[in-house]
Amino acid sequence: MPASRSRDPYRLLPTDAESRSIALDLYERVADRPIISPHGHVPARLLDDNLPFRDPADLFVSTDHYVTRLLHASGVPLELLGVGGQTADPLNAWKALASNWHIFAGTASGYWLAEELSMFFGVDDDLDDQNAEQVYHTIAARLQEPDFLPRKLFSDFGLEVLATTDDPLDDLSHHARLRRSGLSGRVIPTFRPDAYLDPCAPLFLTKVEKLLAASGSPSTFPGYLSALEERRAYFIEHGAVSTDHGVLEPLTMDLAPGDAERIFQAVLTQTADANEQRQFRAHMLFQMARMSVFDGLVMTIHAGVLRNHSSATLERFGPDTGHDIPVHTTFTEGLRPMLESFGLEKNLHIVLFTVDETAYSRELAPLAGFYPSVYVGAPWWFLDAPDAIGRYRSAVTETAGLYRTSGFIDDTRAFLSIPARHDAARRADAAFLARMVREGRMSVRTAGRVADDLVDAIPKQVFKL
Amino acid sequence: MPASRSRDPYRLLPTDAESRSIALDLYERVADRPIISPHGHVPARLLDDNLPFRDPADLFVSTDHYVTRLLHASGVPLELLGVGGQTADPLNAWKALASNWHIFAGTASGYWLAEELSMFFGVDDDLDDQNAEQVYHTIAARLQEPDFLPRKLFSDFGLEVLATTDDPLDDLSHHARLRRSGLSGRVIPTFRPDAYLDPCAPLFLTKVEKLLAASGSPSTFPGYLSALEERRAYFIEHGAVSTDHGVLEPLTMDLAPGDAERIFQAVLTQTADANEQRQFRAHMLFQMARMSVFDGLVMTIHAGVLRNHSSATLERFGPDTGHDIPVHTTFTEGLRPMLESFGLEKNLHIVLFTVDETAYSRELAPLAGFYPSVYVGAPWWFLDAPDAIGRYRSAVTETAGLYRTSGFIDDTRAFLSIPARHDAARRADAAFLARMVREGRMSVRTAGRVADDLVDAIPKQVFKL
Amino acid sequence: MPASRSRDPYRLLPTDAESRSIALDLYERVADRPIISPHGHVPARLLDDNLPFRDPADLFVSTDHYVTRLLHASGVPLELLGVGGQTADPLNAWKALASNWHIFAGTASGYWLAEELSMFFGVDDDLDDQNAEQVYHTIAARLQEPDFLPRKLFSDFGLEVLATTDDPLDDLSHHARLRRSGLSGRVIPTFRPDAYLDPCAPLFLTKVEKLLAASGSPSTFPGYLSALEERRAYFIEHGAVSTDHGVLEPLTMDLAPGDAERIFQAVLTQTADANEQRQFRAHMLFQMARMSVFDGLVMTIHAGVLRNHSSATLERFGPDTGHDIPVHTTFTEGLRPMLESFGLEKNLHIVLFTVDETAYSRELAPLAGFYPSVYVGAPWWFLDAPDAIGRYRSAVTETAGLYRTSGFIDDTRAFLSIPARHDAARRADAAFLARMVREGRMSVRTAGRVADDLVDAIPKQVFKL
Repeated sequence: MPASRSRDPYRLLPTDAESRSIALDLYERVADRPIISPHGHVPARLLDDNLPFRDPADLFVSTDHYVTRLLHASGVPLELLGVGGQTADPLNAWKALASNWHIFAGTASGYWLAEELSMFFGVDDDLDDQNAEQVYHTIAARLQEPDFLPRKLFSDFGLEVLATTDDPLDDLSHHARLRRSGLSGRVIPTFRPDAYLDPCAPLFLTKVEKLLAASGSPSTFPGYLSALEERRAYFIEHGAVSTDHGVLEPLTMDLAPGDAERIFQAVLTQTADANEQRQFRAHMLFQMARMSVFDGLVMTIHAGVLRNHSSATLERFGPDTGHDIPVHTTFTEGLRPMLESFGLEKNLHIVLFTVDETAYSRELAPLAGFYPSVYVGAPWWFLDAPDAIGRYRSAVTETAGLYRTSGFIDDTRAFLSIPARHDAARRADAAFLARMVREGRMSVRTAGRVADDLVDAIPKQVFKL
Repeated sequence: MPASRSRDPYRLLPTDAESRSIALDLYERVADRPIISPHGHVPARLLDDNLPFRDPADLFVSTDHYVTRLLHASGVPLELLGVGGQTADPLNAWKALASNWHIFAGTASGYWLAEELSMFFGVDDDLDDQNAEQVYHTIAARLQEPDFLPRKLFSDFGLEVLATTDDPLDDLSHHARLRRSGLSGRVIPTFRPDAYLDPCAPLFLTKVEKLLAASGSPSTFPGYLSALEERRAYFIEHGAVSTDHGVLEPLTMDLAPGDAERIFQAVLTQTADANEQRQFRAHMLFQMARMSVFDGLVMTIHAGVLRNHSSATLERFGPDTGHDIPVHTTFTEGLRPMLESFGLEKNLHIVLFTVDETAYSRELAPLAGFYPSVYVGAPWWFLDAPDAIGRYRSAVTETAGLYRTSGFIDDTRAFLSIPARHDAARRADAAFLARMVREGRMSVRTAGRVADDLVDAIPKQVFKL
Repeated sequence: MPASRSRDPYRLLPTDAESRSIALDLYERVADRPIISPHGHVPARLLDDNLPFRDPADLFVSTDHYVTRLLHASGVPLELLGVGGQTADPLNAWKALASNWHIFAGTASGYWLAEELSMFFGVDDDLDDQNAEQVYHTIAARLQEPDFLPRKLFSDFGLEVLATTDDPLDDLSHHARLRRSGLSGRVIPTFRPDAYLDPCAPLFLTKVEKLLAASGSPSTFPGYLSALEERRAYFIEHGAVSTDHGVLEPLTMDLAPGDAERIFQAVLTQTADANEQRQFRAHMLFQMARMSVFDGLVMTIHAGVLRNHSSATLERFGPDTGHDIPVHTTFTEGLRPMLESFGLEKNLHIVLFTVDETAYSRELAPLAGFYPSVYVGAPWWFLDAPDAIGRYRSAVTETAGLYRTSGFIDDTRAFLSIPARHDAARRADAAFLARMVREGRMSVRTAGRVADDLVDAIPKQVFKL
């Protein structure tokens, strides 16, 4: 990493002098440890192709919906930012970011951007109208340098494991090539079958048909389950350790085989009503747990986000353009059928993610504090920021401790932000642990062990790495 | 302002020495800036009449339901406090406050009262049985002095804008007179049509009929809408910049014209069932947004309070007597029809207020972080207190920054509390920004800009002032 | 108490030097005050029998479901821990705790255990594989010493009042004997009729029949009410001051007498449907309030926990084995019928406990800030830990102050943990009050008064002691 970073060495650490010195010690012991990224959205292709990044706007603006959403809210049209493949002048998009730099003050995105500008490009000042163009060219020039290619960065970042997220029918050829490429760490796929489990997902029928065709299974419910099992096995062969489930409602149901068959046929013929569609989704999540008990894939459940709130924006710019909005989410009753059947299974790991913070102390910590299969996922999406991480640790730890949590997960599409995100999480956890020490609730020795485990032993155990 | 205030200059600032010195600098740059109060409940008549305040009990106890509610909870009968126009001995009411001073320890009300006693009357001690009578007479004497009249105070407070809240059929004559009075700042009306939009509101039918009669519109749904539009125009002529909507449930629906007409006739003939009443409310909120796109009035939505929880108290003492209780509130799905239709409109500003804090990080920050029309309202009612403001900033900022929030809103009937409330908010925001600086998350320069903007540029932009 | 405690004297106090010195002063004025424990689950028999504790594992592991649940989550089988009366080797169970000591880092249980090991046994080190056996024998030896018997400890703890929780048909003979035993404080029963009010409770019918038989009342609803009233009177004679109600949903309904009778007969004949069962529960809670108005017993309502989430664990190990999981809980509307009828009654005290923190600022503080009958119960179950207590005080105080809260309640079955729990609460409250002082929001004098009252005047007033 370039040594140009001149930011406050105590950033994100506690404000009082005594605690921050404890925190700095804890942070420093893990600051340079390898990065384990067991869940995220960097495409394997980025590393397989290993091409230079296009331009500063493409890298930091157009493809980062955390950034474009707040610019959009502030009146910058998405088309000017090049969102959803719209053609836009990259310097203009960059200038829109620079002149609106103040709206990111205090945000997670603003923090990561500042870190990246400093870390990679030696830019330590706030962006503004004056320096926008000069900084743009500084970055643009650096992007063309031969040591600024994805695979070199992968190694510079100290990435030990990077998980991608993939369609069940993906052939995983990028992963296969990467495995043979001599890359300094592992790039592993994640089985994400949402579009195959939710009758309301776009292209559901097409996907089901393709999956059945690919496996040669009959169009029966058992046939469909075995087609899914086959693909899971294929993913496991290619290094996958987990499945990912993005659901609006974390609901599970154990349907009788006859009911499951009947509802499966109804969704295939598009005659299922809303209740049957819901039952189907809930039963498929149940089936995923059953398969995990068998094949050992860790389940991650990301619940409670209403996708594509603005239909007009979806139509024009596509999905993942900044208007997925969380909803009130509860787990205790919805997950019960799954946990009644499989919750005590040694081979099952379920990592629960929420964007409704209220579930932390109320449901997730109590569930993970009893079921050997349940872990509380790291703060997710809107919540993977310093204050939110502090609230998470405060809400979860007193009931479930630190060993029933997943370790940090960056969940990002923005490859370049990975070191900044993990660094921020390590700082935030050091801040929490230092407070525990300062408050006489944890010995320094134990805090050190926990700090180490949070970046290594814990994610490896939770994700079976 | 009298110079007698001897309270801790660091009050509400961070506890550690380093952060509080940063915070004091930030606070001091805005401490004496003019006050913009874009939403509140001071009657225009108070300023138009410009009469001396009656007595200390009337000023600080009887008319402040924050105060009477907690005294009532502690066993003091509301009649003894002169609530709801009951005759009560003011000295007795005052003594009830003084002897119960400890129950206000740590409350927002207690803080504001202490500020006001110090700021206006040089009283810096805790009240108690011993000093009650003497303090009463000190205040009573001051209230009769010629420089303690509402308009003089308005100018002393540095009020640049004060918005009132008014019935759509109000003739706004007080506002008109005040505009011609040479007052040092603007007093502007706010269009609050709750009683005209909710078939269950007291006097709904009477009010609808009066409104139709006043505008000469026919008793059809389009006629009713145009009668409302006329009154909005009248308010705009008199300086209004916003409408206010107090709803139990923030629900919107876009009904087909035929359905709207049918339901309107049903509510007029009192044959609408509960579901139709709910549809009517939801469609009227939708219509308010449509009108705002057209006429530019900012919508403020105050959601989630069940009014008049205690019927016996309502019957005896009237509304606004301290037993309005919040309920669980969600926005993401209920507001969607409105945002689908109008959320991307440049001319629309919607400020969302909640007394369910869980919506901050889960729904309000994500919505305001995408829709150009949506702002997160300042902490409201039970939440406009120092700790609650800190939780609000912590919950909202990391997702939506500070520029998608509304700036402070005092929402008060208690004219004399306005400086204390704004001062407390400025201190609480300085505390938050200082922490951002101390944690290396914001430059001092940016923090200073944000501090300035929060009391000026931001409320002016959000409320189109 | 043994003087061996060598833990940090500033533990749980604020992190910055200035606040912690204020906090230490506040803590020290109450540190040695008598303990009032108005709600808990220590059996009266423990003190009546006054036998030595069995062994370290039985004392600190097997019977403490806070401890066994987290060990179970981490892969230790419950049978190895001796849960639910399973035979287990106590040294093995103890070793499981010691080798998993790190999983308790930062938890409330871990804190209490460390306190108890230090306070009673002079053990100040973290447990681990190395010292497990030696510590076990140290404790085991101490347990056999004649001054380590329950009644001697009761006196050493400075217990002034200890409330138990008892079945309405309990003859309270242990309490009667204890009253005559010359014990240094009072042991009082609590009337807990859950199993008599919920048609879905195990053994409901048997219990109803026994109760009717015991009182000789007819099998009518009025007969049943009068049987319950008789038992309440019996409890009052034996010193009871409160009733306890554990409900999933805090719902109340005022049924007409005819409906109540009809539904009562339906539940007796097991022909009631789910809705009628719910109505019955809700009406019985309403009836409990009515009786409390009459007989003066304080109602405590513990709401929102789904008991026995894992049926397999319930079947094998029994209830209270660590898998009771909270659910989303609201109070405003569900309690309204009860509060409409009785909320203004001077003789009624209702203490509301929640494990859904969101209700604190949204519902509980507003309700307790108006109704003279309503108090906000101390942080309960998963929430009676230092950070959670801080969140509770922050969420409740600004609306309701400190005098509408219940004072600390340990709610524990673990007799030996009582001093540590109360000490932790006193420290956490001192930390909160010190912050109020440091932030200029409370005078030192008032903070001192509040600190005193929180451990004495407040619980005595709330629980009518």
